[in-house]
Amino acid sequence: MEVLMSDNIRFERGMRNLSAIDGDGGRRVVESLADIAPDFARYLVEFPFGDIYERNGLSLRDREIATIAALAALGNALPQLKVHIQAGLNVGVTRSEIVEILMQMAVYAGFPAALNGLFAAKEVFAEATSKAGAA
Amino acid sequence: MEVLMSDNIRFERGMRNLSAIDGDGGRRVVESLADIAPDFARYLVEFPFGDIYERNGLSLRDREIATIAALAALGNALPQLKVHIQAGLNVGVTRSEIVEILMQMAVYAGFPAALNGLFAAKEVFAEATSKAGAA
Amino acid sequence: MEVLMSDNIRFERGMRNLSAIDGDGGRRVVESLADIAPDFARYLVEFPFGDIYERNGLSLRDREIATIAALAALGNALPQLKVHIQAGLNVGVTRSEIVEILMQMAVYAGFPAALNGLFAAKEVFAEATSKAGAA
Amino acid sequence: MEVLMSDNIRFERGMRNLSAIDGDGGRRVVESLADIAPDFARYLVEFPFGDIYERNGLSLRDREIATIAALAALGNALPQLKVHIQAGLNVGVTRSEIVEILMQMAVYAGFPAALNGLFAAKEVFAEATSKAGAA
Amino acid sequence: MEVLMSDNIRFERGMRNLSAIDGDGGRRVVESLADIAPDFARYLVEFPFGDIYERNGLSLRDREIATIAALAALGNALPQLKVHIQAGLNVGVTRSEIVEILMQMAVYAGFPAALNGLFAAKEVFAEATSKAGAA
Amino acid sequence: MEVLMSDNIRFERGMRNLSAIDGDGGRRVVESLADIAPDFARYLVEFPFGDIYERNGLSLRDREIATIAALAALGNALPQLKVHIQAGLNVGVTRSEIVEILMQMAVYAGFPAALNGLFAAKEVFAEATSKAGAA
Repeated sequence: MEVLMSDNIRFERGMRNLSAIDGDGGRRVVESLADIAPDFARYLVEFPFGDIYERNGLSLRDREIATIAALAALGNALPQLKVHIQAGLNVGVTRSEIVEILMQMAVYAGFPAALNGLFAAKEVFAEATSKAGAA
Repeated sequence: MEVLMSDNIRFERGMRNLSAIDGDGGRRVVESLADIAPDFARYLVEFPFGDIYERNGLSLRDREIATIAALAALGNALPQLKVHIQAGLNVGVTRSEIVEILMQMAVYAGFPAALNGLFAAKEVFAEATSKAGAA
Repeated sequence: MEVLMSDNIRFERGMRNLSAIDGDGGRRVVESLADIAPDFARYLVEFPFGDIYERNGLSLRDREIATIAALAALGNALPQLKVHIQAGLNVGVTRSEIVEILMQMAVYAGFPAALNGLFAAKEVFAEATSKAGAA
Repeated sequence: MEVLMSDNIRFERGMRNLSAIDGDGGRRVVESLADIAPDFARYLVEFPFGDIYERNGLSLRDREIATIAALAALGNALPQLKVHIQAGLNVGVTRSEIVEILMQMAVYAGFPAALNGLFAAKEVFAEATSKAGAA
Repeated sequence: MEVLMSDNIRFERGMRNLSAIDGDGGRRVVESLADIAPDFARYLVEFPFGDIYERNGLSLRDREIATIAALAALGNALPQLKVHIQAGLNVGVTRSEIVEILMQMAVYAGFPAALNGLFAAKEVFAEATSKAGAA
Repeated sequence: MEVLMSDNIRFERGMRNLSAIDGDGGRRVVESLADIAPDFARYLVEFPFGDIYERNGLSLRDREIATIAALAALGNALPQLKVHIQAGLNVGVTRSEIVEILMQMAVYAGFPAALNGLFAAKEVFAEATSKAGAA
């Protein structure tokens, strides 16, 4: 892929946002693409994180509320939902707020979508707790 | 349908929340169910608005951010998306924040979902403007 | 398309089932395909109606309950949902049973899916009533 | 969560219906929510099972036919599909009827949805058989 | 939105690709965003058309086959499906090939998805014919 | 299930196509249905592979491009997506073309759908490589 000068700028600010928001989870996703679709890893960093999450006009906290709700409602992207539940915690959405968001999805996407979202949150919270304990 | 005492309490607080959040849009939905499924109108008021939206722990503003994101991502509930774009405006989500939320859905549900959400917002904003003009 | 002998048998029994179940609605769908995809009209008659609906082991009434539920839950096939709400009436699912099925979809696919299903039923019932009146 | 008097009534009849319909599967779901979202366990019992499944106007057998069809068509709630395949058996839908419902989903949601539903049924039936053998 | 130098390059090649592929349809979409989300119009041109459709390794014809199939299978983005059916014609997918793709979706997303895709193609083909007649 | 004469012809050509396209993957699916829904194994062979994939008017290569795109976009049929990524390789879609198709799905179904499709491709490619090594 031809790399334009400012793509490096978009990539760099994307990586900065990705680290700030998703932490290890995001970095692992990018690394896991290295041997199958390295260009896609670049697009993933550049567009969502270098363009969208870089924008003013909506706080990172509000952006993660929207992402957690959307991924839970769609119900077919569990790994990404877990990454963004952790991302929500990273940018200041509390555990109880995440649980409220997931519970609310029962209204718009049905009880199974809410249940599967809550079980994903349960795993992410447990992992976060054990990490904190290990620290 | 047997009506339990406290169902009346749940219904009353649900109607109060429904009016505060969705305004006319919500009331029209309830009325439109009167001749086909009056019990469902009651459940719609009681569970989503009497139980979920009554809960503390997440602001109404955050709840509408989650709902707008979820309905735009699902992409198969346009009338409800419009009601909740107006609801977002009613509870303090700004037009530009709603546009940011819908744009972000391109990342998680694809560009068509974001486009159709933005066109829905365009209609709701135009209607809100003309009402304001008429006032 | 090469037409095999027994495809004619499958097509004939499919048309017989299609007429019995979906009535005019089904026939109109088949006719509307004539100038864009006549082979697909044949497949539509042969596989769903000539193979599946021909099977013993589940009553037509139960089959329509399943189809109405599935189409309402998917929420992206409104014309087909209307055809099958009428089909349900044709094979003995009552109006109030159809309303119960659609209400129940709020639990599994969310309130918007149930609402849009109920509004579709409202239209189909009104049309059925006016036809009955005209008769 | 403030608990209204009649919520206890709704909860009790919901638990009764949940046990009658989903048996252990349903109880396990409620228990698994205890440490992440106990209020949601309560809503799950109260609204779907205390309100919807309590209603007259559609038999439990017909309700499970609708639920199995909807969850198989959506294709993104496999754990819940398994619970309701068992629930169907519990309320009198036969194995061969469940297979017919899942096969029919190929028409409305595609062959992959039907296949994944049938493989889920295969697991549930095997488990039910081994339990019966153990009894 | 801060505009980086090479974003102009990405935008220009994106507009060139958009015109070549989607013709008027694509341009109309971009214009329709001007007053609601101009930045999104820019992203739509830059990422899908400036980055993805600019890539070597898959022909435009193959890319449109993939897009038509995906949008028909999703079944919740009809306006975009129509734009890409026309786009397919623009880059050398024949009418009968488009019909084959849409028919095939019956296998993977169900007959309603295929039907609604075929009816969309019928409209697009009729419009293309009348334009050709007018020319 | 009554078996019509020409159903045998459809079944035979379907099995021939299934073997040519999906190889072992397809055969394993058919075998896995033997004890739960043997009639469905027959329909799966007859309609998708005996009718649709038998048709002229679209190359097998183009058909697999459409199927890979559709299954990746739907995002809820991972086992079938893997079977068809292998099928694509079998009928001449290259690894890099498959990666391009999956990357493009980020535009139409979101980045999570593309990511999960790419990770599925990674597994299929690794398995194909190890088989080749074993040969």
